[in-house]
Amino acid sequence: MVKNNIGSFLSHWMDGLGPYPEVVISSRIRLARNIKGLPFPYFASDSQKQKVQQSISEVLENCGESNGLSLIKMEDLDPLVKEVMMEKHLISPLLTQDDHKCAVCLSKEEETSIMINEEDHLRIQSFLPGLQLEKAWEEADYYDNIVERNLEYSFHERYGYLTSCPTNVGTGLRASIMLHLPGLIITKQLNQVLSALSQIGLAVRGLYGEGAEVVGNLVQISNQITLGQSEEEIIQNLYNVTKQVIEQENTARQFLLNKNREKIEDRSRRALGVLKYAYLISWQEAMQLISDVRMGFEMGFISGIDRRMLNELLIIIRPACLQMVAGQELEVNERDLERAKQVRKKLKNVSM
Amino acid sequence: MVKNNIGSFLSHWMDGLGPYPEVVISSRIRLARNIKGLPFPYFASDSQKQKVQQSISEVLENCGESNGLSLIKMEDLDPLVKEVMMEKHLISPLLTQDDHKCAVCLSKEEETSIMINEEDHLRIQSFLPGLQLEKAWEEADYYDNIVERNLEYSFHERYGYLTSCPTNVGTGLRASIMLHLPGLIITKQLNQVLSALSQIGLAVRGLYGEGAEVVGNLVQISNQITLGQSEEEIIQNLYNVTKQVIEQENTARQFLLNKNREKIEDRSRRALGVLKYAYLISWQEAMQLISDVRMGFEMGFISGIDRRMLNELLIIIRPACLQMVAGQELEVNERDLERAKQVRKKLKNVSM
Repeated sequence: MVKNNIGSFLSHWMDGLGPYPEVVISSRIRLARNIKGLPFPYFASDSQKQKVQQSISEVLENCGESNGLSLIKMEDLDPLVKEVMMEKHLISPLLTQDDHKCAVCLSKEEETSIMINEEDHLRIQSFLPGLQLEKAWEEADYYDNIVERNLEYSFHERYGYLTSCPTNVGTGLRASIMLHLPGLIITKQLNQVLSALSQIGLAVRGLYGEGAEVVGNLVQISNQITLGQSEEEIIQNLYNVTKQVIEQENTARQFLLNKNREKIEDRSRRALGVLKYAYLISWQEAMQLISDVRMGFEMGFISGIDRRMLNELLIIIRPACLQMVAGQELEVNERDLERAKQVRKKLKNVSM
Repeated sequence: MVKNNIGSFLSHWMDGLGPYPEVVISSRIRLARNIKGLPFPYFASDSQKQKVQQSISEVLENCGESNGLSLIKMEDLDPLVKEVMMEKHLISPLLTQDDHKCAVCLSKEEETSIMINEEDHLRIQSFLPGLQLEKAWEEADYYDNIVERNLEYSFHERYGYLTSCPTNVGTGLRASIMLHLPGLIITKQLNQVLSALSQIGLAVRGLYGEGAEVVGNLVQISNQITLGQSEEEIIQNLYNVTKQVIEQENTARQFLLNKNREKIEDRSRRALGVLKYAYLISWQEAMQLISDVRMGFEMGFISGIDRRMLNELLIIIRPACLQMVAGQELEVNERDLERAKQVRKKLKNVSM
């Protein structure tokens, strides 16, 4: 199933639908859970990890048939396939490195991905397009309840769900939003906005994981606090803040349109021209150009394109996806060549 | 007739034919002549200039009917039309500024342009595509002989043809070649080549007249010496040097292809992408990008395009041509907009 999906590189979260799609790429909920009486994965023996995998997979497979969940054992996968899954945000980098007794349960549209024996026994992740935190939370909660009905979680009356890393203790909930913020970046307001966010306890990151720099004007914001607030409070708080950031981004875009319409239109059209014609292109440059094209699309300058195509481009240009398509390992320079080729192919029928 | 031709902006010299078209855009011969017994234009009275115009135009009109020459009086032309003619290299900047009793005789395909009362009474110019100095010389010589049969030139036994500026005395001949030298420029060999050229008495200039900087990798080389050598010697000398420069340019291109094929292909394809999609574009940038596309075409990376289209682009992007097409005066920023629009239109059907 995984291999089949890889042909299009599309997951449900990329389809460009959902509320506020002009700024919000996707919403993600992740729950960290551990089975009572078994050590956290870092300290568990092989047989203990095997037991974790087995108990969880039994529960999920039983419920999963009707939900289209499939269990995929990491050790059965080609390393490149694992990298591709990571690039699609379906599994974490950790699972691509140490896959011993690790597994993932994936739903058909890939909006649910449940990792087994990652940092915690269970990482239930729900990934939706646009600003849909509540719905993503409902989906994750649904699977969480199924497991909880069958297995006892490590839970402390006072501290809540116990997790491998103390930053997840309590709700075990990480809610995050991926935002496209070219307006705030071009008008040099991003740092101001981000520092305000961190002051109210939100974490800000680039596209691929913690500490990653902002590339392609894509920013992830998520809750840092997991303890002392209910799931609903955490989600409502992130939702409210996101709404404010969307408003600020839209104000910045309107400012650019009023003040510098021609230059902005020029910038986005040139980006499309370069993406359609370049013969070599680095990941960083492609990310920036895709952002410029997206901005042009959102501002109404560029037609013949849609958000799904732009989201899919973000994934297609990653190293493992490129190598998957090319059917062979590629050196850095060869990737730049293959990247340009795949981008040209994707944008072939887009013209102005 | 002039107005009709302006629609396409094409002159015969732009058609991309002729020998060595991969490096040589065009060849030009210009003869400076003055009528005996009348002061040079700078010192002539209106009635004297009128007399010059009348005598020359009578001779040319008589011979011209069979050759398709038309006399155009500068004072009859709209200032913008004069600018367009200058941008097409049919008349000099001087004729666009002070047009009193000035005129030009143009052949149908605009390969011959005879200016009356420019710096000298007569400037016979012949302009052909590719490396065709000898043929251009024959054409200019043909008209020169016609005039000389009917009017007596200012001629000194020892110094030859007398001219307004001493740098033209003798043969009154200026032979020049317009070359496209991206290979020598990218490999940073141009200055070396140019300084060698000036050491052997050749002048080097950019596209538009004396002292103009090199834009779009286009370089004009011409003889500086007009005295002490026969016309044939001057032309043969320039021809030989041009052949050497062509060889050096082709060697440089081959070096780039061997060493850096992918980067060069990338550069030329991106240039096409930007030209096809930009919404604003300055003259300097457009010139550079047209050069990059031309290089890509000559190296076989870009198809669906031809040299005529590239040469026509050089003219289309000039301010007066843009204003002619737009049908109104344009500010600098408006020209950047119109320039991008006209370039997009011209390249609309070019794809990879």
